[in-house]
Amino acid sequence: MQKPSNARGTRDFGPQIMAKRQYVFQVIQTEFQRFGFQAIETPAVENLSVLMGKYGEEGDQLLFKILNSGDFAKDLTAEDLVQGPKKLTMKIAEKGLRYDLTVPFARFVAMNRNELVFPFKRYQMQPVWRADRPQKGRYREFYQCDADVIGSDALINEVELMHLFISIFQKLNIQAELKINHRKILAGLVEVMGKSEEFMRFATILDKLDKIGWEATRTQFEEMGIAASDLDQLAQLFELKGQAQWDLLQSVLASSVQGMEGLADIQEILSAIQASQAGAPSIAFDLSLARGLSYYTGTIFEGKALEGDFQPSIAGGGRYDNLTAAFGLPNVSGVGLSFGIERILDVLEACQKFPALALSASEVLLIYMDKQGQSMALASAQELRTAGISTELYPEIGKLKKAFEYAHKKQIPFVGLIGESELQAQKISLKDMKNGTQALRSMAEIRTEVLNARP
Amino acid sequence: MQKPSNARGTRDFGPQIMAKRQYVFQVIQTEFQRFGFQAIETPAVENLSVLMGKYGEEGDQLLFKILNSGDFAKDLTAEDLVQGPKKLTMKIAEKGLRYDLTVPFARFVAMNRNELVFPFKRYQMQPVWRADRPQKGRYREFYQCDADVIGSDALINEVELMHLFISIFQKLNIQAELKINHRKILAGLVEVMGKSEEFMRFATILDKLDKIGWEATRTQFEEMGIAASDLDQLAQLFELKGQAQWDLLQSVLASSVQGMEGLADIQEILSAIQASQAGAPSIAFDLSLARGLSYYTGTIFEGKALEGDFQPSIAGGGRYDNLTAAFGLPNVSGVGLSFGIERILDVLEACQKFPALALSASEVLLIYMDKQGQSMALASAQELRTAGISTELYPEIGKLKKAFEYAHKKQIPFVGLIGESELQAQKISLKDMKNGTQALRSMAEIRTEVLNARP
Repeated sequence: MQKPSNARGTRDFGPQIMAKRQYVFQVIQTEFQRFGFQAIETPAVENLSVLMGKYGEEGDQLLFKILNSGDFAKDLTAEDLVQGPKKLTMKIAEKGLRYDLTVPFARFVAMNRNELVFPFKRYQMQPVWRADRPQKGRYREFYQCDADVIGSDALINEVELMHLFISIFQKLNIQAELKINHRKILAGLVEVMGKSEEFMRFATILDKLDKIGWEATRTQFEEMGIAASDLDQLAQLFELKGQAQWDLLQSVLASSVQGMEGLADIQEILSAIQASQAGAPSIAFDLSLARGLSYYTGTIFEGKALEGDFQPSIAGGGRYDNLTAAFGLPNVSGVGLSFGIERILDVLEACQKFPALALSASEVLLIYMDKQGQSMALASAQELRTAGISTELYPEIGKLKKAFEYAHKKQIPFVGLIGESELQAQKISLKDMKNGTQALRSMAEIRTEVLNARP
Repeated sequence: MQKPSNARGTRDFGPQIMAKRQYVFQVIQTEFQRFGFQAIETPAVENLSVLMGKYGEEGDQLLFKILNSGDFAKDLTAEDLVQGPKKLTMKIAEKGLRYDLTVPFARFVAMNRNELVFPFKRYQMQPVWRADRPQKGRYREFYQCDADVIGSDALINEVELMHLFISIFQKLNIQAELKINHRKILAGLVEVMGKSEEFMRFATILDKLDKIGWEATRTQFEEMGIAASDLDQLAQLFELKGQAQWDLLQSVLASSVQGMEGLADIQEILSAIQASQAGAPSIAFDLSLARGLSYYTGTIFEGKALEGDFQPSIAGGGRYDNLTAAFGLPNVSGVGLSFGIERILDVLEACQKFPALALSASEVLLIYMDKQGQSMALASAQELRTAGISTELYPEIGKLKKAFEYAHKKQIPFVGLIGESELQAQKISLKDMKNGTQALRSMAEIRTEVLNARP
């Protein structure tokens, strides 16, 4: 006998939380479909050759690796043990758990290029795994909900993803904002500072700016060898807002082709959003947005909740031009947005924004005093279910008090009792648990009463 | 650049197959809810201490184990390498992927005993992983859909699970039969033959009877040391059908308390099913049904399709009296039925029993000749979506032929074109892709036409 526990960083979801999760999944899925995205699923288990090297050094370490089956150690020697975990892993594990949905999606697109209709708009709602140190609000197993368009470099796709963002958070009744930046703007900045080879280092440092502040960020930029005059200019760029910032960017990036491309893209996207008048106020350019993942090459997005005390991002994404190339399909541009379902749930919880959700679908609980009543209940339950009414039987015979307690706890709105007189009348005493009224009813009357009571 | 592939025994699901999968999941989930089952989810990753020893020796081997994070090998010595994979695994892997949904459910119940409402009726639809040798129709990652009632030993729960089985396959339009047996009947047989200690060996051999035939089965029983006279009687028992078989069982098991309990349970269940008149013909007692899993202690079920050329079972389950005891919660009886979603999909495919399923939810594709048209399309799309109409934009400007091809392949029923004259009229040329008609329409007219065209 053992004291059972969940693996560290993983969670169970009981009926209460599942009702909330299913609500949020349903809202997001409905919007995904309303925008023309089609569902796909990829397996949780991928070959490590697919996953490794796609998420940077840190990502490689955070991948969960699966031990090969059978006698996995038979070719190992004592020498293998001293070569470090990385080399040893390669010898005993060839599979891993997916780290995000984007890389498996790129593999899927490369493998199915001949069957897919391009531009391919897909959504995917599945768990991912990361061997992160578990902490409040951060888990080792969590769902991602992604919408991507692949096979089109038109910026209208970015605009549509922003509309999707706006629609989803409108439906969820959460005030939210989407920040947008462009990797080419950042690459332009690094270029004019003469640090193009260290782009990802720059982006990784910048990514933490809002957490650690400018002074600490500046110190790390100094360590990169960025000149003091350039750092002064960066400081000014990050301090300015609105048109003034934009004007300075235009002048700083004038000599960088990619930098100017980035600015033009952002301008086009923001104009299109404003023209279609769909919630433009919740979209904002943010020069300090960097995103950690190395595969983004164009626009990058990050969504935050504007309600409650909630800091972490609730959505993120961007454009990637070379991701399928790693799987033998070059020159296919994609752009996607991932919705942080776990954090969205946290926001809804913190702001108490969940609608009234049924704890179970059950509408009628049938209870009975003997085997004969049970037999009638069995047939009645099937009849009610056929009429679309969710019905259950309390399994123990004659346990009225327990049965009513059960109905109360499970929030079942009607209890039908079958005793001796009900058997004789071939009717059921139906109790409305909300107002406490009770009356002898035929099956047809029960159907009507239950359907009328629906919200 | 690598040639990408799926990990062995795993699959991707593209939009076509996902439409079919979502249909079957939806049917099963709706019935689960209609019977009062509540959703839970448990993590894919469990501590190995939870999983090991629950599925027999073979199951332990088929568990996928996850390598510990970090420097997992730092305490390993050359000696550890020669102690075999089992001991070595314990030193470098403490987590694994769930093998079924029942054991994690038992852990969940034990851990949440104080919050749950008993009898607890839960459903769970999640993937499981087994390091089986992949073969046709057998995968290493596949979904299970389970409904269980825990905390009640009343046989009415068995009857309700059978009703659930009947309802689901009626809804799926598949002729199916559910076979039922009782572990106590089999235990009684083993008892009267003096082989009680080898019950699971007997059950495991019996489980293959329909595959290998009586002669090969008899040989294996002989190897167990079962006496020739007992084998003759077994042969007769398995050959007889209906009342004759039942009568012989009554006489053979007369001296076995558990055997007689098993017979009484089966009789009560079958009477209840017949009394509630819900598809009794698809329920059958089958003495040769054994089931492989060791945790069953009472009734056992197995469902088969009666259509097509399909042999494997499409559902299975049974009663387990001691499963939560392994997690510190004794004396809690449960009974469950697991629906083999992958095989149900195979049957539907083979028998072509899928209803007409939309390949995507999209109802309107908007296309345009210039940026101005794109801007109008963006706003129109949002308006249509707000009205509940799934709408997408073809991202490339002026690519009419490609856009129509896209609509055709994605089976989108309407295409709305915005050119110069449409911009002037502030209307859209709506083409019905089915009958080819096209006309200039206002937004209100489009809404009406699209809604009227719904099936």
